Amino acid sequence: MKKILLALSLIFSVSTFAQKEDSLQIRELFDAALVQGHAYENLRSLCKDVGARLSGSPQAEKAVSWAKELLESYQFDTVWLMPVKVPHWVRGDMEKAGVNGKPMSIKTLGGSVSSNGRIEAEVIEVQNFEELEKLGEEGIIGKIVFFNRPFDRKLISTGDAYGGCVNQRWDGASKAAVFGAVGVFVRSLSHKKDNHAHTGSMGYEEGVKKIPSVALSVEDAEMLSDLLKNKPKSIAYLNVNSQTFPDKDSYNVIAEITGSAEPDKIITFGGHLDSWDVGEGAHDDGAGVVHSIEALRIIKATGYTPRYTLRCVLFMNEENGNNGGKTYAAVAKEKGEIHMAALESDAGGFVPRGFTMDGTSEQVKQMQSWESLLEPYKLHIFKKGWGGVDIGPLKSQNVPLIGLRPDDQRYFDHHHSDTDVFENVHQRELELGSASFAAMIYLVDKYGLGLDLKGLKKK
Amino acid sequence: MKKILLALSLIFSVSTFAQKEDSLQIRELFDAALVQGHAYENLRSLCKDVGARLSGSPQAEKAVSWAKELLESYQFDTVWLMPVKVPHWVRGDMEKAGVNGKPMSIKTLGGSVSSNGRIEAEVIEVQNFEELEKLGEEGIIGKIVFFNRPFDRKLISTGDAYGGCVNQRWDGASKAAVFGAVGVFVRSLSHKKDNHAHTGSMGYEEGVKKIPSVALSVEDAEMLSDLLKNKPKSIAYLNVNSQTFPDKDSYNVIAEITGSAEPDKIITFGGHLDSWDVGEGAHDDGAGVVHSIEALRIIKATGYTPRYTLRCVLFMNEENGNNGGKTYAAVAKEKGEIHMAALESDAGGFVPRGFTMDGTSEQVKQMQSWESLLEPYKLHIFKKGWGGVDIGPLKSQNVPLIGLRPDDQRYFDHHHSDTDVFENVHQRELELGSASFAAMIYLVDKYGLGLDLKGLKKK
Repeated sequence: MKKILLALSLIFSVSTFAQKEDSLQIRELFDAALVQGHAYENLRSLCKDVGARLSGSPQAEKAVSWAKELLESYQFDTVWLMPVKVPHWVRGDMEKAGVNGKPMSIKTLGGSVSSNGRIEAEVIEVQNFEELEKLGEEGIIGKIVFFNRPFDRKLISTGDAYGGCVNQRWDGASKAAVFGAVGVFVRSLSHKKDNHAHTGSMGYEEGVKKIPSVALSVEDAEMLSDLLKNKPKSIAYLNVNSQTFPDKDSYNVIAEITGSAEPDKIITFGGHLDSWDVGEGAHDDGAGVVHSIEALRIIKATGYTPRYTLRCVLFMNEENGNNGGKTYAAVAKEKGEIHMAALESDAGGFVPRGFTMDGTSEQVKQMQSWESLLEPYKLHIFKKGWGGVDIGPLKSQNVPLIGLRPDDQRYFDHHHSDTDVFENVHQRELELGSASFAAMIYLVDKYGLGLDLKGLKKK
Repeated sequence: MKKILLALSLIFSVSTFAQKEDSLQIRELFDAALVQGHAYENLRSLCKDVGARLSGSPQAEKAVSWAKELLESYQFDTVWLMPVKVPHWVRGDMEKAGVNGKPMSIKTLGGSVSSNGRIEAEVIEVQNFEELEKLGEEGIIGKIVFFNRPFDRKLISTGDAYGGCVNQRWDGASKAAVFGAVGVFVRSLSHKKDNHAHTGSMGYEEGVKKIPSVALSVEDAEMLSDLLKNKPKSIAYLNVNSQTFPDKDSYNVIAEITGSAEPDKIITFGGHLDSWDVGEGAHDDGAGVVHSIEALRIIKATGYTPRYTLRCVLFMNEENGNNGGKTYAAVAKEKGEIHMAALESDAGGFVPRGFTMDGTSEQVKQMQSWESLLEPYKLHIFKKGWGGVDIGPLKSQNVPLIGLRPDDQRYFDHHHSDTDVFENVHQRELELGSASFAAMIYLVDKYGLGLDLKGLKKK
């Protein structure tokens, strides 16, 4: 009995010690991010020295050099570029639309064709594809279709509200073209009632005529909707000259600290380096870029020796193709790399609330077992859920995917619009995000997920 | 055995039904706040039609009328004014300070005496009262003392950082005057490095000479500190002409829905109607004012019949005296009122994170038992802690005090400064705060705290 008690007390001490060691390590990561953090200054530089950086643009290439130089300056074990083919769509210098002669605030949607000059047509409002189908060719032919379904205010998560509206932006043009529409207006995907239109990617269905599609600011969408209630036959105009060029060569930018125990096993974490061609891509996804760089920097700065190889990946082309993410997963598969986990920050630089995981129940439970270590930092979301677009293609290799979850109330105010600028990112919120991301990477490195969990349980 | 099972299953059904009823009621409160909410427009009106409203000012009296009219428009059962004597301090039209001839951005601290003309003196920097004492009369006499202790960046809660610095503002003048200082500069209590100085209340110790005390913007505090490293004998000037007048008559503004079962028992909830005389008092505490009004409105709008009397109290004079809170508690005691609980929103209009309670462990546990009902709204803080300044005086009557806890990272960016304006409040964050506040009031009304908890447990 004494022996059992002694053994139990030893186990208890070890576990208490481990817990304390974890608390101290995590505290050091937060101190490093909050007191002498680099994330905010790095984001300022990315936003102001590089700016908006759509795949295929000269600015995206500048962002690649910027990231490579910055990562090299931190003297990680390795920094390299992974070639990625990217689409090359360019917003034109002509971007005009209006109704009854009055101009509206628009952004051509990414991937949209040119209007080939000025289109003038009656505009008809619908809320969804069902209404469109009811109107049919008779009601649609020759007209501009105006998709005006707003965010559902009842949804607490703004991401859910976005998810309930995004098909208008992505599919609206082809759905309307089937019935003979000549162009499409889409209400911006945002709660915020202002005069900045929000761009984003759209696609065309095979075999359907390609018609131009533009976002209207929420204010102008409401103005147009009100107008159409009084003057249903109002004439709108649309003139945009965007163009698609042949694909270009670009890169994922990668830095590593080599694992000390199992260097051939990798924990990948990152954000995307490209952005839309408006604003400065500050929250989307400058924040994720600097969160990731800062996480690697502070893990190194605190002197922690990782068990696995920690790999920071700044993906190219999340916004309009995800070729960076697809290429990364394909290369990993080809090389037979073992990924212990992949983490992504692509939900803004707002105050971090926790993490969601696209993994097995056992892996989610393992993550939840760390909750008490992160509760002092006000992290409270630890549940099954979305990982991220860039890391998504690793899913088929059974890699557990973890997404950082910042508060989302303000995210879509700025998303893909002129207001996604450095000034709208809060220094401490950004810094807390870096530290939270680093803390999760540390815990995954130390305790693993999946296989390691079973190993731990056997002890 | 069968009877026991039947009884158990009945209890289970009732409890499941009650849980579902609670979920639906809380959902309705959130829908009412988010879809057709009044909080944001009410805040706009308070900020723009009334503006900054320091106790004793004409604007504070305008705020009383504004609140009374608004509450009357909602046709609650009762609306009335409770007389409160308030101090009457007025910032002067002269508010200048600088160093080596270069002006700095300052705000006279509330309660400070006039400088009675221009003071010129050597300025000496200290971090805390210990340094001051070490310098002693020899080092301090005839000088302006500059308290420059910054917020501790390591502290996750900005409220804790504020707590670690606020004695410089409150006590700095008397502590320095003891050693013969002629004036005081205090670094603004904020993380944010900008050029807006943050005011706030200060006091004078009995029997110590009253010297003027002003806040410097964080930028100017850092500039001055850098300057003093190179030129330790720099001469600063200070010229402010604030004045204190005799106390004035003012009011707490109160509205009620009478309880259906026990109308003589009261749940009080509120925020403070007064603000500092800078900015628009948007977060501090316009947000708390409109949270409270909106909570009562949406509880009524959803058709809920409260068991106890629900009393919304808009307190006067939290900022420089708390006479509204003190008077309210004194009147409650005099009348022998039974307060079931008191809730306060005075921590800004940011995204709500939960509640802290100054109450017994049993009461805190009761609140924690509601966590799962509020988790869908991302509320996660349910712990022992601070109630609020206005409701504080009820503590001696054994009333459990509950404080709404919004996210606090941005709060001190704006606190008591020119930037505490409507534009810096986010509509949905404000609305979520109103609904969260209403949900907690509903739960306290339905299940009680303390005595009621014991009653429930007996069943």
